Amino acid sequence: MTDKMNDVENEAAENEATPKGANTEMDTEVENISNDSNPEDTIEIVDEKDEKINELEAKLHEEENKLLRVLADYENAKRRAALDKEALIKYKAQSILTNLLPILDNFERALAVEAKSEESQSLLTGMEMIYRNLIDSLKGEGLVEIEAQDKEFDPNFHQAVMTGSEPDKSSGIVLEELQKGYQLKDRVLRPSMVKVNE
Amino acid sequence: MTDKMNDVENEAAENEATPKGANTEMDTEVENISNDSNPEDTIEIVDEKDEKINELEAKLHEEENKLLRVLADYENAKRRAALDKEALIKYKAQSILTNLLPILDNFERALAVEAKSEESQSLLTGMEMIYRNLIDSLKGEGLVEIEAQDKEFDPNFHQAVMTGSEPDKSSGIVLEELQKGYQLKDRVLRPSMVKVNE
Repeated sequence: MTDKMNDVENEAAENEATPKGANTEMDTEVENISNDSNPEDTIEIVDEKDEKINELEAKLHEEENKLLRVLADYENAKRRAALDKEALIKYKAQSILTNLLPILDNFERALAVEAKSEESQSLLTGMEMIYRNLIDSLKGEGLVEIEAQDKEFDPNFHQAVMTGSEPDKSSGIVLEELQKGYQLKDRVLRPSMVKVNE
Repeated sequence: MTDKMNDVENEAAENEATPKGANTEMDTEVENISNDSNPEDTIEIVDEKDEKINELEAKLHEEENKLLRVLADYENAKRRAALDKEALIKYKAQSILTNLLPILDNFERALAVEAKSEESQSLLTGMEMIYRNLIDSLKGEGLVEIEAQDKEFDPNFHQAVMTGSEPDKSSGIVLEELQKGYQLKDRVLRPSMVKVNE
């Protein structure tokens, strides 16, 4: 792209270099027409001018096409840049959220223990509040917990790692969520790992 | 910017509309020069052609300048877009990290309690590991803990909320960090709240 543009720029610079008064010599010849009215010479001068006109028209046409091409490139580049920026903003939390998922898993596992003493129970309650604040904060950045338990298995959001057999439930129903899945907005960061009814 | 570009495009389209064979009429006149060698008429034809040449040269010059302007705009837009994108990528974690800071504060406070039972100590140890993993993960995204304790007070990184008087320490030394400060890369998200020696 830049190469093409430099090319266009150089050509433009070359055209620029053609001096505006390039037909000065011809102008001088014209001055002499009235004194020297040989029709042959006059036709030659007029032919030269016609040639010059054709040449200029061709250059002008070329220049106009060049401008239209550059404008089209420019518009395309702006459109692409706007789309890029939009995606960059929409999914800016992707790497940080992806890296936090194993930490959320560990946090949930740590909170799943059963406290025997009142002191431990109080500790766990405090930690649960921190976990909820953490999750809520991440949800504010676009994190979405994928629902799985008792839902129909959907390969777009669930990964089946086990099957079970519960005749009283429909076939293809998620019997158990083994690991929570997450999305960032509409993009799946990690599918739920599930056990599916046969 | 777009207005300007549309303007340029319209002008280009107008030029395009000037038919290439606009001097056909003059060409026909030229055919007659040899038969009608009246020098007055001939001069008139040559003058018309000179006028046409001047007009075309002016248009060409204008068109070349227009192209150079558009190319300059294009280059500027590309440069700005690249800088925008760079900043967007560099600081993409800013909002998420800023929102997580109060959660990190609470986490640290919860871990500061003294466990009386072995069960509680084991719970706290588990939670400390989760906290460390969380901090390390956020550091991977550019989070930096600001150093304060025993450092010289620096208003770029520290906010003095109390003063103390310890004659055996230099004046302007941070005596105590009351709340941890954080940066995202080179950008301060929150200064450390500190107690400074008078």
